[in-house]
Parts: sequence; structure tokens; C-alpha cells
Amino acid sequence: MSTPIKIDPKLDLVLERTIGVPRELVWKVWTTPEHLKHWFCPKPWSVTRCEIDLRPGGIFSSVMRSPEGQEFPNVGCYLEVVPNERLVFTDALLPGYRPSEKPFFTAILDLYPAGNGTRYVATALHRDEAGRKQHEEMGFHDGWGTVVTQMVEYIKTRL
Amino acid sequence: MSTPIKIDPKLDLVLERTIGVPRELVWKVWTTPEHLKHWFCPKPWSVTRCEIDLRPGGIFSSVMRSPEGQEFPNVGCYLEVVPNERLVFTDALLPGYRPSEKPFFTAILDLYPAGNGTRYVATALHRDEAGRKQHEEMGFHDGWGTVVTQMVEYIKTRL
Repeated sequence: MSTPIKIDPKLDLVLERTIGVPRELVWKVWTTPEHLKHWFCPKPWSVTRCEIDLRPGGIFSSVMRSPEGQEFPNVGCYLEVVPNERLVFTDALLPGYRPSEKPFFTAILDLYPAGNGTRYVATALHRDEAGRKQHEEMGFHDGWGTVVTQMVEYIKTRL
Repeated sequence: MSTPIKIDPKLDLVLERTIGVPRELVWKVWTTPEHLKHWFCPKPWSVTRCEIDLRPGGIFSSVMRSPEGQEFPNVGCYLEVVPNERLVFTDALLPGYRPSEKPFFTAILDLYPAGNGTRYVATALHRDEAGRKQHEEMGFHDGWGTVVTQMVEYIKTRL
């Protein structure tokens, strides 16, 4: 049974879209490193590495690279893995559940069937208002939105 | 499939005991507030409140009360719930997976059958050496050991 998630508009950010690709393919490109690398970062940024151990406590890491070549590693672990329905991960815990040095957010991806497509709901939970604000200023809405557009295009043209 | 946990002796603390009560009863007293209150804190400290929503992301909270009457609340969430085998919870995440303000440790309780009893392995994962040291100085070994003794006595006399 999936855990009910409580959204707090002061602390959290939500991106919701209805997209014209089935959720099984969304799940596939979110959980396979070779697919994820192609769309997970707003271009011209890129993903140079990605590691996935798809189970609670398993690693989810990626390295994002700026157009200038600077690399930014992210590492966290999965918390819930419900195929085609829900994926939860956080950077508050390292793989194997060890508390991390710099917790920032927990992400929840919920996928609902919508006709032949998918209602895609991505939520970022922060510990305080400063965290939400920082994420907004980093470009949450544009960035996560761009990434969904890239993902849909990738699925339609490459899968 | 349970996640393999990597212990780092510099960062982590482990208490291991073989006890003369079956693991099903250990599980029961760890996951039922009315039972947990009786043994979860080294006496003369006591547990005045306990809330349990036994699923990943669900609340695990307790309030510990000093002999002088000062109360210390703890709140976190479960990460893995494998009945009679493994319970994982952390204070790095609040219920519903929101990153917490003061992450301190993740606890892993592993229960193995051992004859008519149980091999009881309780592990505390910290993010750094300072965290482990602080937990040691708070009395991890004596405290968690006392609590196991209290738990076994409670099971033998009250269940």
C-alpha cells in the first residue's frame, strides 16, 4: 500500500502534466540509466553518469554536466518502487539508508493512466520554506517542465 | 528483497544479542504502541506516548520522559517493514518522507531465528563519526542493551 503523501504548499513544489505516452514507457525511461541519460537534464546540460539499483534503499545517482564541463554529482536512494505507478527517492539518505550530509529534497513521481497517455505528477518535498525557495530559484518549474518535454520527445522518437 | 546494509565501524553502532524469546513476539512488542511503551526506554525513564503507522513512510514516534518529568519527543518514519524479519526507520525523514530538520540516525532491526529464540541485531547508521560518537556518549551500548533486557522480561512475564 502506497503511503499517502501530504503536500504543504509552503514547503513543496509540484509539477503536473498530462502527456501522450503510456506510463509503462515513462517508468522505463525513469528507471534505466541508458534511457535516463538522454532527457533527465535540461539541454545543453547533460547527464554523464547514472547508477540505479531499483529497490528501497538502493542507489539512485546521476552526474550532471554543465555546458562548460563542470560536473555536479547527485546521490540518494529509492524509498518506494511501485512499477508503473510510483517512484520515491531522496537525497536525505545515501544508499543503504545512511543519513546524508546535505539533505535537500524527496521526490515523488506518481503516474496515472489518462486515456492512451499518462497523468504525470512530480512532487518535491523540502524540509523548510528556504529549501522550497532555493529549489524554485534553481528553476524547478522551467527545469522539471523542460525535462518532461524532453522525456516525451525521447520516448516518441527513440523507443 | 531486503536491501543489503553496509556497516562502517567508524560511523555505525551495532548491538547483537541472542535472546530466549521467539522473533514473532519481538516483532509484536516493537510494532504495537501499548507493548512498546513498557520496555522501549531504560527505566526509570519512561515512554509516555507512541504512534505507529507500520508501513514505509508511516510515522514512528515516541515521547521519552525523564525521571524529573522532562519530555523528549522523537519522530521519524519507517523505511522497510518485513514482518518478523526486518524493521528499518529513520529520523532523517518525517512521516511521508519529508526531509527532517535534525537528522541523526537510521535504525535497522534484524531478527533471525535461533533455536527457540532469536538472534537480535540492532544497528544504528550515522552520517559521520561525530554522530556515532555522540550516540556512544549518550549511552548506546548500555542503553540499547538495557532495553533488550527489559523487552525480554516484558515478553516473558506479560505476553
